[in-house]
Amino acid sequence: MTETPTPEQPTQKRGLSRRGLVGGTAAAAGLAAGAFVAGRATASEGDAPARRTDAFSFRGEHQAGITTPAQDRLHFAAFDVTTGSRAQLIALLQAWTEAADRMTRGLPAGEGGPTEGASNLPPDDTGEAIGLPASGLTITFGFGPSLFRDEQGRDRFGIADRQPAALRTLPHFPADMLDPERSYGDLCVQACADDPQVAVHAIRNLARIGFGTVAVRWSQLGFGRTSTTSTSQSTPRNLFGFKDGTANVKAEEPAAVEKHVWVGAEDDAKAAWLAGGSYLVTRRINMHIETWDRQPLGDQEGFVGRTKASGAPLSGGQEHSEPDFEMPGSEGPVIPVDAHVRVVHPDFHQGARMLRRGYNFVDGSNPLGGLDAGLFFIAFVRDPDTHFIPIQNAMAKSDALMEYLKVTGSALFAAPPGAAAGEYVGQALFEA
Amino acid sequence: MTETPTPEQPTQKRGLSRRGLVGGTAAAAGLAAGAFVAGRATASEGDAPARRTDAFSFRGEHQAGITTPAQDRLHFAAFDVTTGSRAQLIALLQAWTEAADRMTRGLPAGEGGPTEGASNLPPDDTGEAIGLPASGLTITFGFGPSLFRDEQGRDRFGIADRQPAALRTLPHFPADMLDPERSYGDLCVQACADDPQVAVHAIRNLARIGFGTVAVRWSQLGFGRTSTTSTSQSTPRNLFGFKDGTANVKAEEPAAVEKHVWVGAEDDAKAAWLAGGSYLVTRRINMHIETWDRQPLGDQEGFVGRTKASGAPLSGGQEHSEPDFEMPGSEGPVIPVDAHVRVVHPDFHQGARMLRRGYNFVDGSNPLGGLDAGLFFIAFVRDPDTHFIPIQNAMAKSDALMEYLKVTGSALFAAPPGAAAGEYVGQALFEA
Repeated sequence: MTETPTPEQPTQKRGLSRRGLVGGTAAAAGLAAGAFVAGRATASEGDAPARRTDAFSFRGEHQAGITTPAQDRLHFAAFDVTTGSRAQLIALLQAWTEAADRMTRGLPAGEGGPTEGASNLPPDDTGEAIGLPASGLTITFGFGPSLFRDEQGRDRFGIADRQPAALRTLPHFPADMLDPERSYGDLCVQACADDPQVAVHAIRNLARIGFGTVAVRWSQLGFGRTSTTSTSQSTPRNLFGFKDGTANVKAEEPAAVEKHVWVGAEDDAKAAWLAGGSYLVTRRINMHIETWDRQPLGDQEGFVGRTKASGAPLSGGQEHSEPDFEMPGSEGPVIPVDAHVRVVHPDFHQGARMLRRGYNFVDGSNPLGGLDAGLFFIAFVRDPDTHFIPIQNAMAKSDALMEYLKVTGSALFAAPPGAAAGEYVGQALFEA
Repeated sequence: MTETPTPEQPTQKRGLSRRGLVGGTAAAAGLAAGAFVAGRATASEGDAPARRTDAFSFRGEHQAGITTPAQDRLHFAAFDVTTGSRAQLIALLQAWTEAADRMTRGLPAGEGGPTEGASNLPPDDTGEAIGLPASGLTITFGFGPSLFRDEQGRDRFGIADRQPAALRTLPHFPADMLDPERSYGDLCVQACADDPQVAVHAIRNLARIGFGTVAVRWSQLGFGRTSTTSTSQSTPRNLFGFKDGTANVKAEEPAAVEKHVWVGAEDDAKAAWLAGGSYLVTRRINMHIETWDRQPLGDQEGFVGRTKASGAPLSGGQEHSEPDFEMPGSEGPVIPVDAHVRVVHPDFHQGARMLRRGYNFVDGSNPLGGLDAGLFFIAFVRDPDTHFIPIQNAMAKSDALMEYLKVTGSALFAAPPGAAAGEYVGQALFEA
């Protein structure tokens, strides 16, 4: 499994390498390595809070960062390719693969490191992660529809005949108020880690490596995970104050992951290269939190269909109890027909489930004197035509929560399968 | 000392209260309380990384969040007062004091809590921090010059005659490219914590409480601290990849704190209410990180005047060695005359030192295809006229780093002294 912690990695070397020539921290690095037990350790440097030193291998059958236990922090970036050269695009993917493989081990982005190169050359790592452990970093790449064809439908890089049928710009949904500068993109990189500085460092170094080939189209920081992708994780809360992601597809459900997340070999004859990959949907969902905060508790719970305290369905039980949509209440069912939990429930969507991996965000303030805040929704699905678009349509049309939401960004990418040793990410798209 | 951890606080009650009625987590709360030893514990909930459960008292001679050991994460907000009523402004400060006192203990913002109130009333806490410990939260308030007089110079709330002489809009510095929507403000709140969700929760609930009296003017998240305010802390790195804050004023230097940070009783005859407080300077400093990343290592080190690896001055020694500005190099002094460490050094500013408390930020992307990233600079000083403005002028005019910086936000506030039990923050300004 890609997402298995890899304690067999050269942890001590990793620690020493990132710390590099930093005087006085070699001893601390040795301590961290010594404390690395059973794939997890509480590394402590000075007063810094203990951080997971988990390292997830970049290589494998599937890309890491999908079924990997959701890390605490996110930096997501979409890039536009600024060259017309197929060779340059491939060289970038090769360089990105090499750098991602290194950084997810806790190594600097390039062999020279941040401080060990010649003083008359730029360092091949930017240095802000010196001294920080791998921090569970995963780096996940995706290809947008615009990588295959430009706005005039022209084949940009000789791969148009391999564009998956489902990889199209998402339709306009009711209540979408998209900012094109927060939407779309030729390429995407999702960097997740338990230390935000490590996630930012990863995106920043990939952008540095891509200088002249790609430009950042948009980027999004997420400060708090809103999903669980493993039964070992507790369910966090979104900015409505409710538990989010209770019914998520989890790594411990291999049959569900196969059925709902990974693209199958027979799914799309034109896109055999995508088998073992997934579709990655991003939606920047602004919450009108000031309005929400003035709603009575009972109304909030009715909109969601769950209690705020435990996250149990309004029909009773515990957080993970199945909702009973038929149970009668004083007026209609106890879980209202427009409650979020009902509108998006697999029972009403041919059993379709998503693997969600979203994050809370706050990006300053809005012109109305409130916070520019909400949920940066991320989902991985086998097929957006069955697993995302119908559910989003139902939500946009019927969900009571929509009154408190405004979608300001949207994108769809195809996340290729994992790269084996010696391969670069997406190689089968270009060379198979 | 305000910043002393307070293990005598009712930790168990705190844990149980925030967790409220959440089924199944009471046992975990008990565990967290049991693990609270010597003011620090590694609380663990599910797979969440251990977090500091330090609680810093909101009450005391000085406000917390100044000499308190710098926490990892920041949410800073500036507010404009939208009422003309002095009574409403005072009522807000009273309500904010009460809520801040509660939240810094790890309690919900209001007594009813997020889930325990009547179902037909809005909850008096927004709920996203349910289950999270105090996380070292501090909340620090400040008053801007515009609180005292409006743009026409009119006394807004009957306090104009108490406006400190030094509390004026900062002058325009060379290379300032200020966005008014990221600058200034009538009131400010600095929320620092080791968990970003806790810092965001604090600002969000204060904004909720202030609805109708204040509006958010701007808000800034910082993901990584760039300063040390205690000798117990290691020096972190900014987005230039260099250690930042090595020479900061630290809590363990009480004479320096008295001399450089706290306003003295005799400093300003009109503003006796500010004695024991401080001036709070914020500067949103964008870094041209893409350009920086293409500079040779030796040039980067010359701009800063320190080595990238250890942070030692280029004149030798270790990180905390004093720079030797006279030591000759191959061309002029080994620490260039325009190196940052020299331009801002106290030796050239009548010994003036600042207590810096800045944070790294990344706020999406810029129109040039790079990251909108940099340093959200925060400093607390006894007098901006001697401790900030001359140093900022020298930096803007002579500092080699300025080629890689653009200041997009700026503000100055007077942070009143701490509130004693039964007082509200800033009470002496209104009632003394």
